[in-house]
Amino acid sequence: MSFDTLRWRDGRLELIDQTLLPVEEVYRSYDDYREVAKAIVDMIVRGAPAIGVSAAYGLAIAARQALEAENFSSYMEEAYSVFAATRPTAVNLFWGIERMRQKASSLQDMAPSVIAAALEEEAIAIDREDVEANRAMGSYGAALLPDAVNILTHCNAGALATAGYGTALGVIRAAVEAGKRVNVYADETRPFLQGARLTSWELHEDDIPVTLICDNMAGYLMKLGKVDAVIVGADRIASNGDVANKIGTYSVALLAKAHSIPFYVSAPISTIDYAISTGEEIPIEERSHLEVTEWGGVVTAPKGIGVWNPAFDVTPAEYVTAIITDRGVATAPYGDSLLRLKG
Amino acid sequence: MSFDTLRWRDGRLELIDQTLLPVEEVYRSYDDYREVAKAIVDMIVRGAPAIGVSAAYGLAIAARQALEAENFSSYMEEAYSVFAATRPTAVNLFWGIERMRQKASSLQDMAPSVIAAALEEEAIAIDREDVEANRAMGSYGAALLPDAVNILTHCNAGALATAGYGTALGVIRAAVEAGKRVNVYADETRPFLQGARLTSWELHEDDIPVTLICDNMAGYLMKLGKVDAVIVGADRIASNGDVANKIGTYSVALLAKAHSIPFYVSAPISTIDYAISTGEEIPIEERSHLEVTEWGGVVTAPKGIGVWNPAFDVTPAEYVTAIITDRGVATAPYGDSLLRLKG
Repeated sequence: MSFDTLRWRDGRLELIDQTLLPVEEVYRSYDDYREVAKAIVDMIVRGAPAIGVSAAYGLAIAARQALEAENFSSYMEEAYSVFAATRPTAVNLFWGIERMRQKASSLQDMAPSVIAAALEEEAIAIDREDVEANRAMGSYGAALLPDAVNILTHCNAGALATAGYGTALGVIRAAVEAGKRVNVYADETRPFLQGARLTSWELHEDDIPVTLICDNMAGYLMKLGKVDAVIVGADRIASNGDVANKIGTYSVALLAKAHSIPFYVSAPISTIDYAISTGEEIPIEERSHLEVTEWGGVVTAPKGIGVWNPAFDVTPAEYVTAIITDRGVATAPYGDSLLRLKG
Repeated sequence: MSFDTLRWRDGRLELIDQTLLPVEEVYRSYDDYREVAKAIVDMIVRGAPAIGVSAAYGLAIAARQALEAENFSSYMEEAYSVFAATRPTAVNLFWGIERMRQKASSLQDMAPSVIAAALEEEAIAIDREDVEANRAMGSYGAALLPDAVNILTHCNAGALATAGYGTALGVIRAAVEAGKRVNVYADETRPFLQGARLTSWELHEDDIPVTLICDNMAGYLMKLGKVDAVIVGADRIASNGDVANKIGTYSVALLAKAHSIPFYVSAPISTIDYAISTGEEIPIEERSHLEVTEWGGVVTAPKGIGVWNPAFDVTPAEYVTAIITDRGVATAPYGDSLLRLKG
């Protein structure tokens, strides 16, 4: 990789500012957990796994700050709440917070400085494990693809959405490493343009052929026979296999089904929310109207109109050909197959 | 209407500059036919019927310029060619050129000044007839809608796409005038944002409730049960009912079918190309990559990647519930019903 999505340097979290890509490559450095939480809200860092890892590092920073506080535990409880309130849909966030909380809880009789040191180690472990999970998904996913394949992807489920390598783009990277001839079509992914700005940038950096399209071109591209498989990431997967992912994923899945194109979801086990039975229970974040009505200060819609800007949608399991996880590949019926992977 | 898409003033064609809407309302004035042709290429004026009318006025201007030329007829032949080369997909352009050519041809023994005067009259007639056709479509189309209806539209098939009133938006205006409660969802329509910039602007100017969405949200909106009907315009309709329209229309039609939502196309008879049997024969314009990779000078994608930017797609007749024309409503089988309307 020619870049780091996130890195831990001398007790500070450094994030590449994803709002500035692909025009500028700027790293921001954090030593205050509230600033890390704000970076998640502002989408300086985004992507379900990357948010989970960033929150973990944020809590490691919070623990160090808590050493100066009156009450270590109550300071940490506040920090857990702050991160939990950043973004509602991606479950990896809550998974990361919960893992850090359990680590702290397991050491509750120890000195705060010991707990803080352990939380830093835990965050580093979560970071490392995320990259390992992506490598595993890549290996499982690449095996599903033919030797020459045109892949459509939506949003950015790449190195930039994770601690490194990527989920959907991890499968693509692994396929390329396995010698397959891969050509990628990237949906630009309005309104935040993760496909245009991030996916096409990181694939181009890796010399993987990528062609950018507008979201509304995907159906016609399929009709022309130019897509062999769709691979996307996920922000939360219900135990029945319903998939919450970036807005537009539902349409792509439905279009893929209509054209008999396999639709794959690539996500680590931490993305599966075994506590909910269907996608109906997943909260869908709605974001600012300004994301739709202007770009980079350029106004693209009149004032006074209504705007609807859901950040995610839910794709029913029936449209999903397979879910590629770091523990293997799940297929329908997902209730059974996902439970088996839980172990 | 609080604005004119196009108007004929003292022998000059005035066009509202649609590339500047909704931020600025600027009229450009033309007395050189080559500049009119350039305005069509640059999408100062766009929309199949509006292009047809603009080309007719452009040829009226050309005829006046031809009076100063060495050879009136050969000057006009050149002008026909210049307009025919502007944009390939919308058939109304060729229909408008052909109608002007036939008018000139019918007067070929007359003095050039007589022909030029007749061509000006013919362009004015085409302009007036387009508005009348839209009113007729509005009336036929409104009758198909329930008294309270949520309508999704794609691109701009409004007053701004015609000489006035609109095709798809004409149906919406007629429904509102008939006392129906209409709520409109407008796809923003990347890359040129006709939905965000033009449709939402002209509906808002008319106090018709409009909510802007990104193109990739349409499927999820349908899944949530918020769309009762889809109405779009057309750039060319084959004699079997296949519809070429703004890129993304095919996806919307397929999504509507999957959700059992009626999908209506509203277009004047001049949009039907009886000379071709299926949509396969319709040439699809591809436009500049820059439309996708930047907006208003703001770069949104890295340099060096591939870009695919078809301006239109073709929706097979099987996805079309009805075609609303100025001569009545056609339904499947379209081969028969469209032929009957031809008369």
